[in-house]
Amino acid sequence: MIPIVSAYTWVPPIAQGFVKDLRVRWALEEAGIPYRIKLIALGEAKAPAYRRWQPFGQVPAYEDEAGMLFESGAIVLDIAARSEALAPQDPASRRRITAWVIAALNSVEPFVQNYLRFDDDGDAAKSAKRRQQVQSVLDIRLESLVNWLGTQDYLDAGRFTAADLMMATVLRELMGSSALDPYPTLSAYLDRCLARPGFTRSLEPQLQVFREHAPTAAVS
Amino acid sequence: MIPIVSAYTWVPPIAQGFVKDLRVRWALEEAGIPYRIKLIALGEAKAPAYRRWQPFGQVPAYEDEAGMLFESGAIVLDIAARSEALAPQDPASRRRITAWVIAALNSVEPFVQNYLRFDDDGDAAKSAKRRQQVQSVLDIRLESLVNWLGTQDYLDAGRFTAADLMMATVLRELMGSSALDPYPTLSAYLDRCLARPGFTRSLEPQLQVFREHAPTAAVS
Repeated sequence: MIPIVSAYTWVPPIAQGFVKDLRVRWALEEAGIPYRIKLIALGEAKAPAYRRWQPFGQVPAYEDEAGMLFESGAIVLDIAARSEALAPQDPASRRRITAWVIAALNSVEPFVQNYLRFDDDGDAAKSAKRRQQVQSVLDIRLESLVNWLGTQDYLDAGRFTAADLMMATVLRELMGSSALDPYPTLSAYLDRCLARPGFTRSLEPQLQVFREHAPTAAVS
Repeated sequence: MIPIVSAYTWVPPIAQGFVKDLRVRWALEEAGIPYRIKLIALGEAKAPAYRRWQPFGQVPAYEDEAGMLFESGAIVLDIAARSEALAPQDPASRRRITAWVIAALNSVEPFVQNYLRFDDDGDAAKSAKRRQQVQSVLDIRLESLVNWLGTQDYLDAGRFTAADLMMATVLRELMGSSALDPYPTLSAYLDRCLARPGFTRSLEPQLQVFREHAPTAAVS
C-alpha cells in the first residue's frame, strides 16, 4: 500500500508551513517514496477514533503495510531505516542518526519552543529577566551545535541525513526571531538544508491545502 | 567490550536519582547486559574532549564495540533493538516502541519540565495565571496518556517495554508535585513500572556514587 500521512485541512497562519507532517512529507520526498495525505479537521484530531491512530490527537500520524505509527521523529526514523537517501544503512551510522534526531527533539526543540512561546505579561522588568533566562538556555544549546558542526556541512556521516532534516525543521522555527543572528554557522547550515528540492516539494503542498481551505472572508 | 556509560560524580540533591544515565542503567539491567560506569565531574562535561562523546556536554554518553553514542533515548532504543526483554523484536513492534520512546521525550517531557521549572516571580495574580497555563498544557498530555492506557497495564505490546521505561522516567519527575494526583491510572502505571527489580538496581548505584562524592561539610 501507498503510505498515508495525516495532515490538517487548515491551521492559523502562524502555524502554516510549520505543522509537523512537514517532516514526514520531507522524508518521503527525499526517499522518493510516493504517499497519500489524509486530511483531517483540527476538531476531528481530538476524537476517540483518531486517537487510536495518534494518541495525543495531533498530526502527523502514518500508516503503511506494517501498520499504524505516530510521532514525527519515529516516522522519519522508520523511513530512514529503509532509505539510503536519509541515512547510511550500516547499524553504527543508523544509531548515530537516531541520536541526532532525538537530540533535535529533546535537547533543542523544547528550548526553541520556550523561547518562541515566551509570554510577556506586561511587567517590563520581570519579563526582561524571564526572557533573558529562556534565551540563555537556548543559547547554550545553539552554541553546542555550532561547536559540534565546526566546519562540517552536516551533523554526521559527512552528508545530509535524517538528522539534518529533523534539526533543520527545529531550527527553522526560529527564523522569524533574532535567535539565530549570533550564529552564522547555524544560519548557513539551515540554508543548506532548506535549499534541497525535497524540502520545497514538502512545504508547498502543505501550504496549498491551507490556501484551499482558508476560512471564507466575511462579506463587508 | 563491556559497554561504558558516563555519569556524574555528584549533582545537587534535587537532581540526585533523576540524572538521565538512570535510563540507560535501567535498560541495561532489564536486558541483563553488564556495563561499566565512567564517572565525570560536572565541569569536565563541558570540556571539548567530552563534547566529542556528548555534543551537549551532558550525561549519559555511551560506548560499546559499535562506537560512541549519546542521548538517553537513542541509547535505550539501541539496547532495546538487541534485547527481547525491552521490546518484541519484530519490526512492526519495534517501531511502535520507538514512537512511544519519542512521545515520552517530545510530547510529554517538555511539558513536565515546564511545569516543574515554573518560576514564581512574586506577582501573585500573574504567577497564578502562568502556573495555570503550564499546568493545563501538561494536563492535556496526561489525559491523553490516561485515555490511551485505559485498562492496559503497559503502553504497547501487552507487556513492559522500553516505551514504559522511558515514560516512567518522565512521569517520575512529577512525583514530588501534585500533578499526578488527578490521575490514579498514571500513578498506578508508574508504581507498576518502578516496582521492577531492574529499576531499583539502576537507581541505587547512581545514589551511592553521590553519597561517596558528597561535598565535605564545613567544619563548624
